[in-house]
Amino acid sequence: MTANLSLPSIDEIRAAAERIAGLAQRTPVLTCRGLDELACARLFFKCENLQKAGAFKFRGACNAVLLLSDEQAARGVVTHSSGNHAAALALASRLRGIPAHIVMPDNAPVAKRRAVEAYGGRITFCRPTLADRTAVAAQILRETGGVLVHPYDDPAVIAGQGTVALEFHEQAPGLDQLVVPVSGGGLISGIALATASVSPATEIVGVEPEGADDAQQSLRAGRLLAPPIGDTIADGLRAALCERTFAVISQHVREMLTVSEAEIVAAMRLIWERTKLVVEPSSAVTLAAVLQAAPRFRGRRVGLVLSGGNVDLDRLPWSEPGGSG
Amino acid sequence: MTANLSLPSIDEIRAAAERIAGLAQRTPVLTCRGLDELACARLFFKCENLQKAGAFKFRGACNAVLLLSDEQAARGVVTHSSGNHAAALALASRLRGIPAHIVMPDNAPVAKRRAVEAYGGRITFCRPTLADRTAVAAQILRETGGVLVHPYDDPAVIAGQGTVALEFHEQAPGLDQLVVPVSGGGLISGIALATASVSPATEIVGVEPEGADDAQQSLRAGRLLAPPIGDTIADGLRAALCERTFAVISQHVREMLTVSEAEIVAAMRLIWERTKLVVEPSSAVTLAAVLQAAPRFRGRRVGLVLSGGNVDLDRLPWSEPGGSG
Repeated sequence: MTANLSLPSIDEIRAAAERIAGLAQRTPVLTCRGLDELACARLFFKCENLQKAGAFKFRGACNAVLLLSDEQAARGVVTHSSGNHAAALALASRLRGIPAHIVMPDNAPVAKRRAVEAYGGRITFCRPTLADRTAVAAQILRETGGVLVHPYDDPAVIAGQGTVALEFHEQAPGLDQLVVPVSGGGLISGIALATASVSPATEIVGVEPEGADDAQQSLRAGRLLAPPIGDTIADGLRAALCERTFAVISQHVREMLTVSEAEIVAAMRLIWERTKLVVEPSSAVTLAAVLQAAPRFRGRRVGLVLSGGNVDLDRLPWSEPGGSG
Repeated sequence: MTANLSLPSIDEIRAAAERIAGLAQRTPVLTCRGLDELACARLFFKCENLQKAGAFKFRGACNAVLLLSDEQAARGVVTHSSGNHAAALALASRLRGIPAHIVMPDNAPVAKRRAVEAYGGRITFCRPTLADRTAVAAQILRETGGVLVHPYDDPAVIAGQGTVALEFHEQAPGLDQLVVPVSGGGLISGIALATASVSPATEIVGVEPEGADDAQQSLRAGRLLAPPIGDTIADGLRAALCERTFAVISQHVREMLTVSEAEIVAAMRLIWERTKLVVEPSSAVTLAAVLQAAPRFRGRRVGLVLSGGNVDLDRLPWSEPGGSG
């Protein structure tokens, strides 16, 4: 079913790990007795919020940038992103000394915009629609002759994200389940492909916000659907699957769960309080799902990917009107 | 000069490390490129905010509780503490299955009070004065026949805190300086004693809030002074040295720095934003000092002890009137 959609092999994921070693952090895996007691399970948190540029995205962006030939690299890279991929690509490009052109929706969080600027990314704002950001990116590609590094529809990016799983299974062997936030599906695809080789008994569970559940709907329908994606506080999870990531999810992902906005905020606060980690709402969907669907996880060894930590400290959800907490 | 004040030897600190292994976390040391650039130095953060009960205090409390005979332990332990030591002692006692009686000032942060309760500590509130908390603790000691575990004036507690340094020098060898928050002086004493043996070239630098600078004043005077301790946002740093900790500081601490309230808040926010770690204000005095006294640290390998992460998420200093940020 994936014949015409190139996917990274386990060897390519291992090669990505070697390629980005020394540039990307080997992030720690932390445990928290208090949260174990709440969940009645043994939880392992893979801290990609402690990754360079504050999110797992640096792995994929770095791998993609390092795979470019010198000639390609000289013309720079281009992407459109709601934030973390943009910052990651800007940093990866700075480390290689090449330009990064970032098309960013004009409603992206201030903290994420500042990060792109701090890493020297060249931002072009667009309206927050897929059509507009694609059009603006195409225009920049024509002008620069640069290479598009898509946030997730790219085997090199997926291979980079898969390195999360290579580390995680070494650091916390014997995971029964691995719980992963799902947006465009690059992270879960890389993780699922790596896990199928190195820890095939581990079940992969994806999580989406209720209002952005295109992966769950597609999985149930057995084909890629494109339902409207609603607003969610998990600003990193507003992208939709592509055929490539849907193919991986169809084959490798055991289950897709959804969580409510209130559950995301409550879980985010719990993570801050108990683990002392700053995580963004997109990371918190994992704990929200484990607490909400507790019977599925009871007594198991459960890995949770804390995907990123880029938040606006002036606008925390529990201190805003409408935030629960 | 320390003849009549018992201090832990390096062997006792090493024994403490073995004793608490498996109960206390071996906390990670993290680095942050962005903060290195700001400080023009290579910074290593020892994450005691990720310690059990959210602060380094668990090391000393755990060591002290484990050193009790079964007969002593059965009668329980007693302490007075502004918070982190109390929670640590409550947890260490719960792990040994003995009662912990905690005398706590009635203005202690809610988050810290809740932590003590969650670990099963039995709280007695007192007025926030040294006289009252000492009197209330003495009363409980008489009633229970329990053992006082002082937050810092205790060789077993100091030995436990010293295990921070044993790990830190293994994880980040060759530190030029090690920057430590100073309150009652238990942490810096343990760290200084351990460092003198395992990394004697490392300079120990203490940091206090401007309004709670009894250690700096005492060091300058060459004798233990007891100036009034003002209020500070760094609620963990409101205790005063004792003769025991002053003796260690006099002998081993190169320098005491002070930082302003605004510097503490700004540094705390920087740590949250850049390292993605939830730290309490007491931890942030270290980065505040490194940034304020930058020339002393420029180009060096600097270890900073992030001492704890217990904060009230509803009352962050940059979202309150009077907070800078």
